[in-house]
Amino acid sequence: MKLSNIASILECDFQSSDVEIIGINTLKNAKENEVSFVSNSKYVKDLEHTKAAAVIISANLASQLPSSCTPLITKNPYWSMAVLSKYFAPLIEDDRLDKATIGENCTISSYAEIANGAVIGNNCTILAHVYIGAEAVIGDNTVIYPSVTVYRDCKVGNDCIIHANSVIGSDGFGFATNEKGEHKKIYQNGNVVIEDDVEIGSNVSIDRAVFGSTIIKKGTRIDNLVQVGHNCEIGEYSVLVSQVGLAGSTKLGRNVVMGGQSATAGHLEIAPFSTFAARSGITNSIKEAGNTYAGFPLMGHRQWLKLQAKLAKLIK
Amino acid sequence: MKLSNIASILECDFQSSDVEIIGINTLKNAKENEVSFVSNSKYVKDLEHTKAAAVIISANLASQLPSSCTPLITKNPYWSMAVLSKYFAPLIEDDRLDKATIGENCTISSYAEIANGAVIGNNCTILAHVYIGAEAVIGDNTVIYPSVTVYRDCKVGNDCIIHANSVIGSDGFGFATNEKGEHKKIYQNGNVVIEDDVEIGSNVSIDRAVFGSTIIKKGTRIDNLVQVGHNCEIGEYSVLVSQVGLAGSTKLGRNVVMGGQSATAGHLEIAPFSTFAARSGITNSIKEAGNTYAGFPLMGHRQWLKLQAKLAKLIK
Amino acid sequence: MKLSNIASILECDFQSSDVEIIGINTLKNAKENEVSFVSNSKYVKDLEHTKAAAVIISANLASQLPSSCTPLITKNPYWSMAVLSKYFAPLIEDDRLDKATIGENCTISSYAEIANGAVIGNNCTILAHVYIGAEAVIGDNTVIYPSVTVYRDCKVGNDCIIHANSVIGSDGFGFATNEKGEHKKIYQNGNVVIEDDVEIGSNVSIDRAVFGSTIIKKGTRIDNLVQVGHNCEIGEYSVLVSQVGLAGSTKLGRNVVMGGQSATAGHLEIAPFSTFAARSGITNSIKEAGNTYAGFPLMGHRQWLKLQAKLAKLIK
Repeated sequence: MKLSNIASILECDFQSSDVEIIGINTLKNAKENEVSFVSNSKYVKDLEHTKAAAVIISANLASQLPSSCTPLITKNPYWSMAVLSKYFAPLIEDDRLDKATIGENCTISSYAEIANGAVIGNNCTILAHVYIGAEAVIGDNTVIYPSVTVYRDCKVGNDCIIHANSVIGSDGFGFATNEKGEHKKIYQNGNVVIEDDVEIGSNVSIDRAVFGSTIIKKGTRIDNLVQVGHNCEIGEYSVLVSQVGLAGSTKLGRNVVMGGQSATAGHLEIAPFSTFAARSGITNSIKEAGNTYAGFPLMGHRQWLKLQAKLAKLIK
Repeated sequence: MKLSNIASILECDFQSSDVEIIGINTLKNAKENEVSFVSNSKYVKDLEHTKAAAVIISANLASQLPSSCTPLITKNPYWSMAVLSKYFAPLIEDDRLDKATIGENCTISSYAEIANGAVIGNNCTILAHVYIGAEAVIGDNTVIYPSVTVYRDCKVGNDCIIHANSVIGSDGFGFATNEKGEHKKIYQNGNVVIEDDVEIGSNVSIDRAVFGSTIIKKGTRIDNLVQVGHNCEIGEYSVLVSQVGLAGSTKLGRNVVMGGQSATAGHLEIAPFSTFAARSGITNSIKEAGNTYAGFPLMGHRQWLKLQAKLAKLIK
Repeated sequence: MKLSNIASILECDFQSSDVEIIGINTLKNAKENEVSFVSNSKYVKDLEHTKAAAVIISANLASQLPSSCTPLITKNPYWSMAVLSKYFAPLIEDDRLDKATIGENCTISSYAEIANGAVIGNNCTILAHVYIGAEAVIGDNTVIYPSVTVYRDCKVGNDCIIHANSVIGSDGFGFATNEKGEHKKIYQNGNVVIEDDVEIGSNVSIDRAVFGSTIIKKGTRIDNLVQVGHNCEIGEYSVLVSQVGLAGSTKLGRNVVMGGQSATAGHLEIAPFSTFAARSGITNSIKEAGNTYAGFPLMGHRQWLKLQAKLAKLIK
């Protein structure tokens, strides 16, 4: 889409030279043929180095853009980005794509649907009522149990097991809100990448990224009914016990263990080999590797035990 | 079904004039051709104004009924109502209904099943392994991702998106228990009504009403793995983050925001523009609009921060 | 498989007389044609009475085995058991089995898949996109709503209702971890047994046992989005409200009531007629029947109310 076209959709002034735009991205990751936006003061620092062709921005910040970058000035840049995101959403399915490519020695139920453009590796077992979306890729030796949904563009590695009724690649929970309290969907144009040797339980939801990828690294084990928000990154050999919830953009290091029903806020970084007791509530990043935590608010596990002893005294 | 027939099923004395009964309802909402019941002292006040043709009731309360209303006296009215509920349950599917009506310009997977009597609007996309039940209605421009189940009689508005493996209209968690501790199912003969411009994440459960409707009002956003109990009502533009749980009959005003894993008890009314931090536990109604809460038991968000500071001191 | 073959897979010395082995089991339950293992000091006491043909064991414990039992000495017995478990995993589907047996007067959607070797009773309703695995057994008068998955070998009783998108028999969350932090799957070769008159909500996950059975006894009611770990046993007429989580091997007595979002640790025994308020966190067994609890850590419900009153004073 032409940048002039985008300006017209967003009802912005446009006097720059025109250019073909292929997507939306963060200030940090946008390339010369992408548009970005700034709606959170935390990211203002990224303005001066962005390579984006244009940035959706409020009037007062426009002067901080590099001269190579076109400002698209709007009153609510986050809302404008949401409006624009729809234009870059790929088709849900696309009949013009070639039929799916299936590897050797696969067992695929006649009740499964493999969309056009999908690629299935060798020795895979795909059971009834599975859906593999357009241009999704499944590695070798992977087993997908009934009624799993893999949305378009998502990738699953080799030697993975996905249990029944789990969902890989549903839309992240993204929307802009205006002054009337109405919401506008931000189309989630990224994907999910699951590396090799990952096992995922039943009824799990792993959301696709808004831009880029939600990543589950190799050897990770995810139990039933777990929520992984958009743009999360889960380190190698991590363990998420049942009913864990990860809010968007949180990154776990390798071998992080999260007990049942524990949860994190969004945008955190959790050091490797951290262990969280059941129902921990994690609201800050953790920099030191290898410790054990509990509680909400979170504290060291021994501190938590001490607190419980104090509270027990209170009621005696 | 004749009222005399109902009396015979419930093994009640019956000497009134007979009348055709079409369903069961609350004391407040029952019409002249419906039966009601009273099993909770909270609703005794509704006895005198009920329009129900008959009320299942214990002997000691029967005198409070208006003279136009036939008492059906039983020892355990809630159990009797459960017994009767089965007789008013519609068929799960009904081959005598006409084939589904499909609007113009829809894309419907050949792997989807649209039951007889369903109505699909224009420009809908219905992906593989979706089930749309008997007499369910889907509005225009709605997208339903794979393996979503919409039970019979439920209604989904225009411009909605329902992500994979979510369930609209499963039975509410209703049963009566007798003195031996055995349970008797209360058939859930209501439905779910989802208004326009609602987006629902993956693996969500929204239960149908026991009578009447569970209602999700326009513009609401529901994240993954959320539970909405029977007869809830969610106000316009509300936001339910992942793993939220709403117990039955709770009503949220407009623009209520519930953080991840927060939950409510049943039968509450929550004022508009209330915000609840992650893992809030809400056990009382909230009358004043526009405040922010946290904790379990629930308190003002600032109070909660203060409490955490005090607790931190306890362990120093 | 020959015991000598197993020794070779595990790279153990083997000089005993050979015998045919049909599976892996606990020290307590293993029969003369099964192999067992010991990896947890808690179970060392079971060594002397085991009937297992052979036990995977560390060198220092081998002398405690009865003379009839062959030691299979390895450095990490739990890992070795995981390695071996794969060899006893049945095929996911098996075309050599006879076609499914369907009882009289059933309604089975043409969109459902009933695998070879399954047995369906009389008067069942099986809706679209259901999967019934190999050698699974469904009793009479049972209703299975769309997109339910029943894994192979699982049993569902008479007069049951399973709501949409629930999963019966997904693999328990079992793996061994080595000194590098890598995980090895323990194949879950047991099953799930659901007795008569059980109702299960939507999006529920009930995991199959690693050995033996996960058991849901008659009359139990399970709400939506509940997690039941492998080898749990739920007593008659128990009630699990939405979003409850039971960790593996926990046993509930009859008529236990667990409030919404409450959870248990693994390997507990909960006395009959215990009631847990919403969000209770149960980490110890409960021996006395009939009490009501709340909180995390768990306490008597009245104590919990007292504690909350004290905490409320703290912030005044």
